[in-house]
Amino acid sequence: MSGEYKSRIQQFMDYLEQQSLDMAIITSPVHIYFFTGYYSDPHERFLALLLDRRAEEVTLFVPSLDLESARQASIIQEMIPVSDTENPYQLLSQKMGRQVVKLGIEKKAVNLFQYEQLNQCAAIGEFVDLEPFILSLRLIKSASEIESVRKAVAVVERVLAEGVKRVKPRVSELELVAELEYQMKLFGAERPAFETTVLTGSRSALPHGRPNQTRINQGDFLLFDLGVFVNGYCSDITRTFVIGEATKEQQRIYETVLRANLKAIESVQRNQEIGMLDQEARKVIEHEGFGDYFIHRVGHGLGLEIHENPSIHQQNKLMIEPGMLFTIEPGIYIPGMGGVRIEDDIVVNAEGKAEVLTTYPKTIQYLC
Amino acid sequence: MSGEYKSRIQQFMDYLEQQSLDMAIITSPVHIYFFTGYYSDPHERFLALLLDRRAEEVTLFVPSLDLESARQASIIQEMIPVSDTENPYQLLSQKMGRQVVKLGIEKKAVNLFQYEQLNQCAAIGEFVDLEPFILSLRLIKSASEIESVRKAVAVVERVLAEGVKRVKPRVSELELVAELEYQMKLFGAERPAFETTVLTGSRSALPHGRPNQTRINQGDFLLFDLGVFVNGYCSDITRTFVIGEATKEQQRIYETVLRANLKAIESVQRNQEIGMLDQEARKVIEHEGFGDYFIHRVGHGLGLEIHENPSIHQQNKLMIEPGMLFTIEPGIYIPGMGGVRIEDDIVVNAEGKAEVLTTYPKTIQYLC
Repeated sequence: MSGEYKSRIQQFMDYLEQQSLDMAIITSPVHIYFFTGYYSDPHERFLALLLDRRAEEVTLFVPSLDLESARQASIIQEMIPVSDTENPYQLLSQKMGRQVVKLGIEKKAVNLFQYEQLNQCAAIGEFVDLEPFILSLRLIKSASEIESVRKAVAVVERVLAEGVKRVKPRVSELELVAELEYQMKLFGAERPAFETTVLTGSRSALPHGRPNQTRINQGDFLLFDLGVFVNGYCSDITRTFVIGEATKEQQRIYETVLRANLKAIESVQRNQEIGMLDQEARKVIEHEGFGDYFIHRVGHGLGLEIHENPSIHQQNKLMIEPGMLFTIEPGIYIPGMGGVRIEDDIVVNAEGKAEVLTTYPKTIQYLC
Repeated sequence: MSGEYKSRIQQFMDYLEQQSLDMAIITSPVHIYFFTGYYSDPHERFLALLLDRRAEEVTLFVPSLDLESARQASIIQEMIPVSDTENPYQLLSQKMGRQVVKLGIEKKAVNLFQYEQLNQCAAIGEFVDLEPFILSLRLIKSASEIESVRKAVAVVERVLAEGVKRVKPRVSELELVAELEYQMKLFGAERPAFETTVLTGSRSALPHGRPNQTRINQGDFLLFDLGVFVNGYCSDITRTFVIGEATKEQQRIYETVLRANLKAIESVQRNQEIGMLDQEARKVIEHEGFGDYFIHRVGHGLGLEIHENPSIHQQNKLMIEPGMLFTIEPGIYIPGMGGVRIEDDIVVNAEGKAEVLTTYPKTIQYLC
């Protein structure tokens, strides 16, 4: 991995060169992790990565009490520890010099208080937003990033399998959530990637429903939507089951969603507009007359964050490329009756086709 | 409650008057809740409260899809819905007018992207930070805020009682955490106030230890530290138990921490420096020779956030006042052996003395 961080720093330096930026400061913890291998949420303390193109130097400013762990995790050689009694901007100022013509920063990560402090550090001619550049790097996942997501998928699938074993008559949504989150911790997840969701019966028709004490009943759809972070990367999976026997209509809904899921996955093809995947899934659902009940986009990118680029909505004209990693999750939600969603995580492989990372069976399954 | 929000808005308007601020914009969700009664995390969408002193108008800009819930929860009459296709800063600009001499904002809540957008909305002469004013309002809790914390305490104490019932031979830290977090959801908590902590044996000596699969053993200290959010306000409690029988040394440690806890609580007295509470607890612990093992401040404020003002550290010269709400949580941590912490939430009452909100017994208790 350390070679990968080095290569990202090199790409960053090249970008500064191309854009004639004198230096860049990164402060968002996720991006410091992306470029250095060191992740930490410093809360009120000061954590920043300074890239100085002219001096060809990269420096990590790190809270003193985290210095040791930063040294162990990060590829950065030069570190400046900041104690609780020091003014970090004074230390930064010494490193920056008095004059900076163009400074790259993350405009959405720097607040106005920090901006004013930076302006006192040096005479800064212009602030340039680094976000578009960094997001473009994050859009195409490297082999090791894909490997990290694969691990997060492996954990969440074991968790789901354990959770499904706990489904028994009269169990409640919240009891299943508790079991799932407990298994996440046992299997080494850092944390849930989002609010773990179990919804049963008509409640499964609420795309943003929150689990409560509702108990499962015969004939219910039972929907699980969960994900975990492992080593800073996340996974996201949805499976829907039937309690007892399914009606014909339930079977038809389930089969329609499954066909939409498979259709979108098989439609993945490099150099095609990514919005087409949403359209392909939607066509399958519309053809069965459920078009009005598929009320969200078909998927979203994931990686360092649970929602990131690319967004898989109808109008997105972005071209599909190898290394893109995203969910495919069509759904049909019939108010008062119930809903089905089937969500996989896929990565575009070197051939430009979908490789499905999630392996949990998708054919209709009956529990209890 | 609606009278309380109105009175806060009035105080805010008075402050703008005193400081000759033309208007103020609040964007942090917690502060929008504090002034309007409406809480929502808008994620990427735009949510802002605009106070216009000259027009004597208060306007809430709210994502269109949240308009109904904002109307139900908030006291604000004038709302401007912002759809996903509209530019919120254009709408804001129409409301702000072309010239603003002094604009109040939260400098730590506004990022540079938003700052640049604001500067395009109007010719703004000066940005003034509102944080000191708002934090001063939050420092003294109202009767209804105290009532909210009381509810959060009631929930967490029921959760703790259930968790303690689940302590049995060979149970692991993580199993107890899972049980506690499940009970939180059952009893109506919005979420844990922080990472629920159960530590056993020598691991109880780690003030920031993370629960793992370690199982309890005879003779262990077993430490629970947990809190919940209810209606936007939080609670925070720590209790330490002994598994089986305690050694003489364990008893002495426990009794010392308990005396330090009681001493700090009975020392609460209006118009005294708040740092004195830390000193009083510390003296008790030092007197028993454990001074080197009490390695943190004695407490912190809580309310809308789990850590807020006042900070109860030795050097804090802030005067104690009725309405202040904070934890008292001395501890002794002996590396390799174990630790004890006893934490209560207290509020300074009208007489300037401590009222203890947490009621869970503090005398040494033996489990299993």
